Amino acid sequence: MYIAMNRFTVPKENAEAFEALWLGRDSHLKGLPGFVEFHMLKGPEADGSVLYSSHTVWESESAFIGWTKSEAFRAAHKDAGSSRPLYEGSPVFEGFTAIQTIGK
Amino acid sequence: MYIAMNRFTVPKENAEAFEALWLGRDSHLKGLPGFVEFHMLKGPEADGSVLYSSHTVWESESAFIGWTKSEAFRAAHKDAGSSRPLYEGSPVFEGFTAIQTIGK
Repeated sequence: MYIAMNRFTVPKENAEAFEALWLGRDSHLKGLPGFVEFHMLKGPEADGSVLYSSHTVWESESAFIGWTKSEAFRAAHKDAGSSRPLYEGSPVFEGFTAIQTIGK
Repeated sequence: MYIAMNRFTVPKENAEAFEALWLGRDSHLKGLPGFVEFHMLKGPEADGSVLYSSHTVWESESAFIGWTKSEAFRAAHKDAGSSRPLYEGSPVFEGFTAIQTIGK
């Protein structure tokens, strides 16, 4: 299992607009090979900003890499610039591989 | 859905020992109210260190808070000090609430 996260630091006054923009967009993930689940996460507040993170679960890192090279990826990111004024700097990407899983 | 993550910065030379310690420990999560799934994640390498993150999914933030106040939590953390020499500084906790979920 592989988790791709993108961290966004959003000034509190932009949080509502940032959420509306994400919740209102089209997702291009459904049905892609190796796609498991997507969550948009709201994290802690610090220094007047809120940490948000997109959180996409893939069956494997290679499934994720396949997606980054796909037409669907380009379609999903063509409007990415429209949210840029809402957050500080650039989103910070972190990819994680599960080395252990414990279920219920 | 609520995700509790603890980030550990582990010097590369300690990575093997850090993984062995996590993979060898007893889990106290199975069967707890509101527990969904646990993953130990291995993330990117930078400046000679590897980012690891524990990643526990709960049905809600209140289920997570219940766990932090439980006897099982104390039992799970009684030996936490034994891994401390393996990572830099303190683990950094981040709690996230899902504001959107997209399935397959």
